[in-house]
Amino acid sequence: MESLPGFRDFEPSACAQRNALFYGWRTVARRFGFEEFDGPIAEPLELFTQKSGEEIVNQLFAFEDKGGRKMALRPEMTPSLVRILGKSLATLKKPTKLFNITEQFRYERPQKGRLRSFYQFNADIVGEPSLSAEAELIALAVESLRYFGLTEEHFYVRLSDRQLWQLWLKAFGITDEVLVGGILGLLDKWERRPKEDIEKDLIKLLPSCVQTQTFFEATEQLRHCKTLEAIEACFSQQTTDAELSEALHQRLSELEALLHDLAVLECEKFVAVDLTIVRGLAYYTGFVFELFETGNQGRALAGGGRYDQLFEKLTHHPMPAVGFAAGDVTLTDLLNKYHLLSDYKRTADVFCVFEETERDRALRCTQMLRRENFSVLYSFGEAKVLSKQLKKAYVEQPQYIVIFTQELASCGKVQVKCLADETMREVGLEEMAEVLRKKRKIEA
Amino acid sequence: MESLPGFRDFEPSACAQRNALFYGWRTVARRFGFEEFDGPIAEPLELFTQKSGEEIVNQLFAFEDKGGRKMALRPEMTPSLVRILGKSLATLKKPTKLFNITEQFRYERPQKGRLRSFYQFNADIVGEPSLSAEAELIALAVESLRYFGLTEEHFYVRLSDRQLWQLWLKAFGITDEVLVGGILGLLDKWERRPKEDIEKDLIKLLPSCVQTQTFFEATEQLRHCKTLEAIEACFSQQTTDAELSEALHQRLSELEALLHDLAVLECEKFVAVDLTIVRGLAYYTGFVFELFETGNQGRALAGGGRYDQLFEKLTHHPMPAVGFAAGDVTLTDLLNKYHLLSDYKRTADVFCVFEETERDRALRCTQMLRRENFSVLYSFGEAKVLSKQLKKAYVEQPQYIVIFTQELASCGKVQVKCLADETMREVGLEEMAEVLRKKRKIEA
Repeated sequence: MESLPGFRDFEPSACAQRNALFYGWRTVARRFGFEEFDGPIAEPLELFTQKSGEEIVNQLFAFEDKGGRKMALRPEMTPSLVRILGKSLATLKKPTKLFNITEQFRYERPQKGRLRSFYQFNADIVGEPSLSAEAELIALAVESLRYFGLTEEHFYVRLSDRQLWQLWLKAFGITDEVLVGGILGLLDKWERRPKEDIEKDLIKLLPSCVQTQTFFEATEQLRHCKTLEAIEACFSQQTTDAELSEALHQRLSELEALLHDLAVLECEKFVAVDLTIVRGLAYYTGFVFELFETGNQGRALAGGGRYDQLFEKLTHHPMPAVGFAAGDVTLTDLLNKYHLLSDYKRTADVFCVFEETERDRALRCTQMLRRENFSVLYSFGEAKVLSKQLKKAYVEQPQYIVIFTQELASCGKVQVKCLADETMREVGLEEMAEVLRKKRKIEA
Repeated sequence: MESLPGFRDFEPSACAQRNALFYGWRTVARRFGFEEFDGPIAEPLELFTQKSGEEIVNQLFAFEDKGGRKMALRPEMTPSLVRILGKSLATLKKPTKLFNITEQFRYERPQKGRLRSFYQFNADIVGEPSLSAEAELIALAVESLRYFGLTEEHFYVRLSDRQLWQLWLKAFGITDEVLVGGILGLLDKWERRPKEDIEKDLIKLLPSCVQTQTFFEATEQLRHCKTLEAIEACFSQQTTDAELSEALHQRLSELEALLHDLAVLECEKFVAVDLTIVRGLAYYTGFVFELFETGNQGRALAGGGRYDQLFEKLTHHPMPAVGFAAGDVTLTDLLNKYHLLSDYKRTADVFCVFEETERDRALRCTQMLRRENFSVLYSFGEAKVLSKQLKKAYVEQPQYIVIFTQELASCGKVQVKCLADETMREVGLEEMAEVLRKKRKIEA
């Protein structure tokens, strides 16, 4: 029998890789002073529809429990975060920095890099209105990849801004919220669609006073601006409105301050202004970013942004927030491509084999070493012959094989074979333990 | 909005406790040379019904996905283990020692100690027919509780044997598999039901040649036997059949050998022969055991046993196996009762505060320390006044507060305040890093 499509088995070496990823994420999050939390893997369906509308049900593992309660396997962590913090927003420490490493689910056709069950590293800063939160989160995202040995040759951050795009639409007289949302949605999929299709949609969306072709070309130009000067120049071709220019100037100075912070936080080499990014989720309100593999085939490794209105929408309590999520599937692929995620599956430190009369002594030694946190195996069952036991011991590739013979028992000794250098010596039990302790110190 | 009934939120301190539990389980499993694996949280429904019959569906979170595929959230790990190992049984290393720490689900009324979502520590030894496997697993279960500071005052192992019970029924001429299963089921719930109810069921189950009252009283006697001698005496009152006596003698010597191994593995103080245990699951074939809190109100902390026929039933490939599972809910309750599971929530090592001119210097220092694996926070946002920043820093209770002032910048120094002893000194950045490194060495 197979597992369900889009779900994975983690046999020991895959499990060790997965855990190495989790360990890295957790280590870096703690360095940045984020605290770990978690929520249930299943939530009331309403929690997700409330935030994202009814259409999200099509992308969810949604079902009814036997009490007729509508529930869903969580597709993302943010709604649970809002629900959990929502219980005590009035007394929330500001900023509150939280992370978790969670399994999440989406119901869509499984494909390379997109499974139905996957893990995410989620990090959020809640209660901080200033750009420090964006800088800290982007630095965390960058560091969580650098931790594994990835460099600016492997990935970069594409930094964009929803507010800049809103100002841009305002320059064309477009301020209606639904309309703005529709055009941002178009921008999100812009580069994946032929020009003709985008223009068809624009004709439907744009107010009659805006000429589709003009808008398309000017927007294409803005999308490719890589500097603040280029952005400012692009705007000045469209508008001379003093208020709008002032708002743009203000926002660009904020972007500049964010870039400055990121430079101080040693992320300069990784960050590029890239307005082609707008992010799919409707709830972003400010700076948004994606971490991308370099190269043409690059895939997104993480993404996030500021969402200052979601708490208010769901809890009626205003609360600024910034967050990002990074998935395990694309990251594992990338790390394996560069052999950066070694198979951390550990072999045992010691394998005890013994002549039949020495079994109890060997088992006591096993427990003694385990108490000192060594990983120890011993021969099971019917294998009374030393040579058979040794054969099984070699399969496990331990650091040391310890051999208990009747002959050596009389002088309180054992044979210790080191598999790394094939040396063999006869030592007392305490001396053997000391050898192991020393080895551990060297490795630590 | 609330979470679903029987599901838990893990806010940072609860999450830290949960992770401390996972860390302990993982550490002990590795000492015993078990390798970690994992399977999907959802599996085809058939995987569970095939093993446990259709009636299990009532206890499952079972649902159809949009493709009409019947699936369920896993209620236990064993079926997934069999499915995953089933792919390569012919070449399986023997013994294979596996563990995992998984979230599992059951659909029943939530109550104290029993939730709808819970975590389990599962350990299995596959491919080992000898009693070494039982001894190793029971020792692991005991050690996984001792790791947290629990002793023989807090828990003990109730060791029983399905084969002894089968021999007992054979002494009454009961060998029909369905009948044996029915009576084992009765024995499992024996002490929770009034005598009259048990007798009513026995009348229905027992063959006409067996007198209910005789069977009940003799069985009551056997249930309370605490020694091998008492068990042997109990049998001899019922049967003089030579073949049966020989089989009993053989099995009791195996039980004795198991008790010997457990004594050598330093578990003697923890283990009691207790035939009242038969375990609910139908698939056990030999020794079964439960780890129990001491005292009258004691609850089960873990349970398991040998299941030598399940692999064959599900994969048509014979393969002996022993396993156990321990849950997080009762264990966390017990550990908290004795204050043995401290809140491992870590506070930051350093909080950097700064005069406005010194911000960049403070941020660079932050990143430098984080690279050395210290947990470091710094003042966000608009708090330009040192006193306000200090107030926020104290809320976080870091080990050290590092203060960057313009005055000290000129001589390359910072103020370092140690919150433990309230000392304050002025040092260079490298000296400050050295203080932190030394502190870490002391703690490690």
